[in-house]
Amino acid sequence: MQISFPEIKFDANGLIPAIIQDAETNQVLMMAYMNAESLQLTLKKGETYFWSRSRSELWHKGATSGNVQQVIEVRVDCDADTLLIRVDPAGPACHTGNRTCFYRELA
Amino acid sequence: MQISFPEIKFDANGLIPAIIQDAETNQVLMMAYMNAESLQLTLKKGETYFWSRSRSELWHKGATSGNVQQVIEVRVDCDADTLLIRVDPAGPACHTGNRTCFYRELA
Repeated sequence: MQISFPEIKFDANGLIPAIIQDAETNQVLMMAYMNAESLQLTLKKGETYFWSRSRSELWHKGATSGNVQQVIEVRVDCDADTLLIRVDPAGPACHTGNRTCFYRELA
Repeated sequence: MQISFPEIKFDANGLIPAIIQDAETNQVLMMAYMNAESLQLTLKKGETYFWSRSRSELWHKGATSGNVQQVIEVRVDCDADTLLIRVDPAGPACHTGNRTCFYRELA
């Protein structure tokens, strides 16, 4: 089943959360936010782009680290307000060097 | 590696996004929000509880449908502002009857 870009619901700040999943292992790697521009770039370039809320700037994942994420598919949830992006990662997703940002368990 | 409850960062509205993943298949099922109370209930009861932003009320997943989600583990990301909850679901996660809420692909 398919859904088109205009149906995507960005929040009051113009953002949508994007869950990033390794398409091969199904490991959840990270979650970050996209605005319309970064989602359009992601679709056009085939690599993930996000909106950094802390730095208020567009962010090409892997631009400095080299750990880009090649987009395999973009899925959308029932409310059209969350994205699930399945990727082929060139390296670790986390700035700590861990493969996934979810490397800690809640005690 | 472990992290403790007081280190969890809730946002300005007292919420944290929780990605729900099937612990057996690794399929991402849904994303919803938790406040401190719903996270505490989730840990105490071993089933997922959320905060419904649209209804402004605590929500026990599966309370009406029977499709509860048994918690296997709760993981936390590097910024401690997103949860990844791995579950054993009793049935479909989505109100549409789909196993996952991410049943559509962006065209």
